[in-house]
Amino acid sequence: MTTDKPDAARPGKTPDASRRSERSRRAIFDAALALVSETGYAKTTVEGIAARAGVGKQTIYRWWPSKAAVLLDAFLDLAAQANEALGRDVGDGEGDAGIPDTGDLAADLRYVLRATVDELNDPKYDGPTRALAAEGLVSPDFGAQMTELLMEPQLAHYVRRLEAAREDGDIAPDADVRIAAELLTAPLAQRWQYRDRPLTHAYADAVLTHVLRGLSPRP
Amino acid sequence: MTTDKPDAARPGKTPDASRRSERSRRAIFDAALALVSETGYAKTTVEGIAARAGVGKQTIYRWWPSKAAVLLDAFLDLAAQANEALGRDVGDGEGDAGIPDTGDLAADLRYVLRATVDELNDPKYDGPTRALAAEGLVSPDFGAQMTELLMEPQLAHYVRRLEAAREDGDIAPDADVRIAAELLTAPLAQRWQYRDRPLTHAYADAVLTHVLRGLSPRP
Repeated sequence: MTTDKPDAARPGKTPDASRRSERSRRAIFDAALALVSETGYAKTTVEGIAARAGVGKQTIYRWWPSKAAVLLDAFLDLAAQANEALGRDVGDGEGDAGIPDTGDLAADLRYVLRATVDELNDPKYDGPTRALAAEGLVSPDFGAQMTELLMEPQLAHYVRRLEAAREDGDIAPDADVRIAAELLTAPLAQRWQYRDRPLTHAYADAVLTHVLRGLSPRP
Repeated sequence: MTTDKPDAARPGKTPDASRRSERSRRAIFDAALALVSETGYAKTTVEGIAARAGVGKQTIYRWWPSKAAVLLDAFLDLAAQANEALGRDVGDGEGDAGIPDTGDLAADLRYVLRATVDELNDPKYDGPTRALAAEGLVSPDFGAQMTELLMEPQLAHYVRRLEAAREDGDIAPDADVRIAAELLTAPLAQRWQYRDRPLTHAYADAVLTHVLRGLSPRP
C-alpha cells in the first residue's frame, strides 16, 4: 500500500494522490465507525483504526490530532450522508437547505421526523450513535464537541423552519421556537434510548400532532 | 472489621447483625456510586467496590449476583432517596404517592419538573446518572434493566397524574397521556445531556407551558 507513506497520501498533490487520499479517508471513516460500534469508545484506538483501514498510523495523525477528532469527523460524515439522502445539508449553518419549506409546516416536519426515526432504527447509525453518545455523556469535552458540531446544528434546522412558520402566521406569534424544536426531537431520542417501545413513523406523527397543537395560534 | 465475615453481615440474624448489615449495605452503595462516577462503568469492579466500602468481596456476592446488579440497586436506592425527599415513593408502581394531586395539574407538574431539574444539576446524581446511562446506551441488557426499573416507573407517575387530569376534564378527552409524559420529561433529559444551555426552573416551566397548551380541551 502506498497510502501509508506520507507523500502519497497528502491531499491535493496530483489527481492520483487525491484519489488515493479520498480512498484512505473513506477507509479510515468506515474503520473508525465499525470499531467504535463493536468495541466502544474506550477500546477504540488510532492503531486499531489504522490496521482495519489498511493505512499507517501516521496517515491518520497527519489529518487528525486524536482519536476523538477522527471519530467525530467520521460521525459528521455519516450524518452528512444521511442528510444528503434527505436532500438537505447539515453542519455549517450557512446557506444550507435545512428542513424543506413547502409552505406546509406539518408536512415538512413530518418528513424530517420520520427520516430521523428511520435513521435511529438503522444499524448503520445506531451503533456509532450509541457509542459516541455514551462517551459524550461521561466526557464533558467530547460531549461539548458532539453538541456543538452535531446536535446544535440539527436543532438549528428546526428553529429556522419554525421561525419561518411564525413569520407566516402558521404558529402563535409568541411561540418559543427553541423549546418547540427540543419538544419535537427529544422524545424520539429518548424512546430510542429506552428501547422498550417501538420508534415508528406513527410515533413521530403523534409527537408532531401534540407539539403543533401547543404552537397553534389561538383565537 | 467484622463486616467482611459472612456471619456478621447476614441480614436479619440479630439486631446487632441487622445494624451491621444495613451499615455494610449503605457503605457498598456509596462506594459503588462513587466508583462508577469516578472511573466509569467498565472500570468499576466488585473488588474495587468491596475495597472502598471496607467489606469483603463475598459480602457483595452474598447479596448481589453481579456488578450490574449492585450498581442498579445502588442507583435505585439513590433515586428512592430523591423521591422520598419529594414526599413520593417510586419503583413498585403500587400504592405509591406518585406525583402530588392537589387538583391543580400545572402546579403539581411544575413541582415535580423543577425537582427533576434540581436532581439533574446535583453532582450527587449527575455523576452516577451519566455513567449508568452511558452503559445503558451501549449495553442492551443493562439498558433494558435501567428502563424497566427506573425510567418506566418514573414515566408511569406522569401517566397516572395525567389520567386523573383527563378524568377531571383538565385536559382534552383525546389527549395521549403517554406521549404527554414523554414530552414533559425528554427535553429536560436532552438539555442535561447536551450541557450547552442552562437547565433551570424557568426552562422546566416553559416546557410545561408548551405541553399543557397542547393538551388543553378545545372549545
